Amino acid sequence: MEQLPGADAAFLAIETPEAPGHVGGLTLLDPTTSPDFSFDKLVATISERIHLAPRLTQTLREVPLGLDRPYLVDDPDFDVRNHIRRIGVSSPGGLRELAELASYLHARPLHRDRPLWELWFIEGVSDGRCALFMKSHHCLMDGTAGAGMGELICDLEPEPPAAFATAADEERDGQRNYSSLEIGLRAAVHLAQGPRKTLGFGAKLLRQTAGMLFNSSTEGAPPLPTSIPATSFNRDVGPRRAFAAASVALDDVKTVKNHYEVTVNDVVLAITGTAIRNYLLARNELPEESLVSIIAVSKRAEGDGALGNQVTTVPCVWASDEPDPVERLKKIHHNAAVSKEVCANYDAELLSGMGEAFPPVLTNLFMRNFAPSLAPAMTPGNVLVSNVRGTPVPLYVAGARIETMYPLSILMPSQGLNITVVSYMGKVDVGFIADPDLVEDIWELAEAVPRALAELVEAVEKELQAPRA
Amino acid sequence: MEQLPGADAAFLAIETPEAPGHVGGLTLLDPTTSPDFSFDKLVATISERIHLAPRLTQTLREVPLGLDRPYLVDDPDFDVRNHIRRIGVSSPGGLRELAELASYLHARPLHRDRPLWELWFIEGVSDGRCALFMKSHHCLMDGTAGAGMGELICDLEPEPPAAFATAADEERDGQRNYSSLEIGLRAAVHLAQGPRKTLGFGAKLLRQTAGMLFNSSTEGAPPLPTSIPATSFNRDVGPRRAFAAASVALDDVKTVKNHYEVTVNDVVLAITGTAIRNYLLARNELPEESLVSIIAVSKRAEGDGALGNQVTTVPCVWASDEPDPVERLKKIHHNAAVSKEVCANYDAELLSGMGEAFPPVLTNLFMRNFAPSLAPAMTPGNVLVSNVRGTPVPLYVAGARIETMYPLSILMPSQGLNITVVSYMGKVDVGFIADPDLVEDIWELAEAVPRALAELVEAVEKELQAPRA
Repeated sequence: MEQLPGADAAFLAIETPEAPGHVGGLTLLDPTTSPDFSFDKLVATISERIHLAPRLTQTLREVPLGLDRPYLVDDPDFDVRNHIRRIGVSSPGGLRELAELASYLHARPLHRDRPLWELWFIEGVSDGRCALFMKSHHCLMDGTAGAGMGELICDLEPEPPAAFATAADEERDGQRNYSSLEIGLRAAVHLAQGPRKTLGFGAKLLRQTAGMLFNSSTEGAPPLPTSIPATSFNRDVGPRRAFAAASVALDDVKTVKNHYEVTVNDVVLAITGTAIRNYLLARNELPEESLVSIIAVSKRAEGDGALGNQVTTVPCVWASDEPDPVERLKKIHHNAAVSKEVCANYDAELLSGMGEAFPPVLTNLFMRNFAPSLAPAMTPGNVLVSNVRGTPVPLYVAGARIETMYPLSILMPSQGLNITVVSYMGKVDVGFIADPDLVEDIWELAEAVPRALAELVEAVEKELQAPRA
Repeated sequence: MEQLPGADAAFLAIETPEAPGHVGGLTLLDPTTSPDFSFDKLVATISERIHLAPRLTQTLREVPLGLDRPYLVDDPDFDVRNHIRRIGVSSPGGLRELAELASYLHARPLHRDRPLWELWFIEGVSDGRCALFMKSHHCLMDGTAGAGMGELICDLEPEPPAAFATAADEERDGQRNYSSLEIGLRAAVHLAQGPRKTLGFGAKLLRQTAGMLFNSSTEGAPPLPTSIPATSFNRDVGPRRAFAAASVALDDVKTVKNHYEVTVNDVVLAITGTAIRNYLLARNELPEESLVSIIAVSKRAEGDGALGNQVTTVPCVWASDEPDPVERLKKIHHNAAVSKEVCANYDAELLSGMGEAFPPVLTNLFMRNFAPSLAPAMTPGNVLVSNVRGTPVPLYVAGARIETMYPLSILMPSQGLNITVVSYMGKVDVGFIADPDLVEDIWELAEAVPRALAELVEAVEKELQAPRA
């Protein structure tokens, strides 16, 4: 029995019916890599390994009236079959239908009387593929307390060594150390950690309430939270979710990146920003001042492998007021650099602090009653854009190769749109999650992304063909 | 704008996350009766008719702090496509897989910021069939305020007259009268009203709190609510649901009914009671005293067409302490007759009265905090068995013939198991809904029903072959 650490407890306490605190992942699988791939094999694989992730078999014991952080206790009735479910996608089983199904599954809160995760095995996917939808409460995903579902089920090869589970278990039971294989898995599977990282925004939100002010005298520096322009999707978030996704070639992103000497993240911000700019322009709703994105990039992705799960989120002026796409990219590059410098010192674990400092009942009362009205003033930007670096090598689930994994993140109060981007095996997969009452056609956003990249690639080609000045 | 009547308001107020107040229906369709049957045709059919059921396009305006009954207002953003959804069943798409999917869909509460209904179009059903899962809040199903979803979409022929919707609409708008066709539909479609009727149990529960005592001196009369034997499924009900179903031939039921001069309802009680008796026997949990069923039979089914939706629920001693199946049937016949006589005067609309008398906030506080502990004392029986007479003639949805419709009812506090029975087109379809934490294998119950009937049919055959005394 263990008491939940502050940050994890805070993720539970801030949960409301409109803003459940779980994250999701829609994973497309190619089962042809494993002749015996099946629902039963998936269940068997997870059953074999579940002991490696103790939190997945524990349930919450909440303190009466929410006066203290909850405890985690072993669920005496734990049965992995209560958590792994089968469902089908409607025909023809393409990305649109999968996204619709994932939206339904993601919108539904997890009930707190069992370990807080579900895994949905989805049949009926087109082209003989199948899919998984993973859903787990953010409070389960503590980096030190145990592996998450993604790490538990992902392998670097279709047929991992059979001794994996037992060997790792023995080491763990004795010393709470990880086997070297497990360490390798944990390091490789950034995919599954994506959603957690985007959640660092929770910390950001609270950081703002502490009254930190940005240095607004530097050009391109983010504005004060009170000066973020209003949009139709920065309103109270309701209980429904809509999800849409698009993929582009990493090579195209790199062509643009190399030519303009910017970062992959700058290109990602440019093409998603263009999608949102066009969406608002088409509705005559684009604010005069630039929108502000909130960038959540894993520190590990920047080369510092030792920092674990620490999260950096910084607001970045999105240059949505700049009509020329290339100029917009250049401004974003400049603004992102300024933001990182200006915000370099902002990295306190404030959500954790809040979890330690306040009883859950107060945090939850605050979120239910005041967050929606205060959030616009507290929020440092319009849309959180989380760019997660996956692996260049393929990953496998029960022998089936992962083709794509889109994380579905949490919408915070007044953040009716969230973007997550994963690079994996030569593709950049872009996922949009939104409240469909605030974003009327989320596919319009997703479909604008490849067009925005094509526009930049075209500009590069034009400049390369033009005689050098 | 209209204020919800007391009974409907009470159905909202008693709702908790563990006991949501919606009812469901799993309908199997044969699409071969309509060459152009499709999801789009279903959507078009409902769009055409939705104006006939005003409550399906209205949303709740709750009174602040729950101090008065909510109002119904037109939803300015109403779009039928927000309420009709597509999903697939896992392979092979048989009754087990459909029941599993229906369990998931039924367990999830409806969110209150939109009209309180959903219709799921289910693909992937075996044998080229398809299925629907209908879900609507009980507060929508008022008999006078508008037709329910079932009545709205069911036809007596594959291609109903095209003028149906318009003609009916004009009459309705002018006089609030129904067209004769609509009256025919309303009268025919008992199927869709089944779930509502089972809910009359809410009234029963409150009747008990008013302190009514049963006449316990008559032989076979129901015991005092405080003397109902305890079982493992009469405990606090959690948020999950499991559903299982079985079908038997109406002719077999009638063979038994006619031979022993009992009613169809007596046979239904006997075969479901035998299933539960065997289930508890196998676990060494059968109480010494007889279990008590709660019978909810529509008055209309007894020939009184004018009474509308009035509900009768009476407790009936189930004779589960009688080992011989034929003797059990005879005792049930006797006990049901005694119960109806003893309880003849109990028919006040008490749930309605409670809805009028108490503000929703008090009713809900009561249900959330005290109902689970008080319920065992208030509840007049172990399991509600609702027997709904369907039609002998086929019904159609968007041209596709309805083969089977199983209602999925509400579980009340301490009622972890509920049975609904529908007779339709020569079959008797029996559905069990339960909290899977209280009933470990609901299919064991469903599968015991045809065996229990076969046992009675065999007894009849034996008696017919034996020389008459």
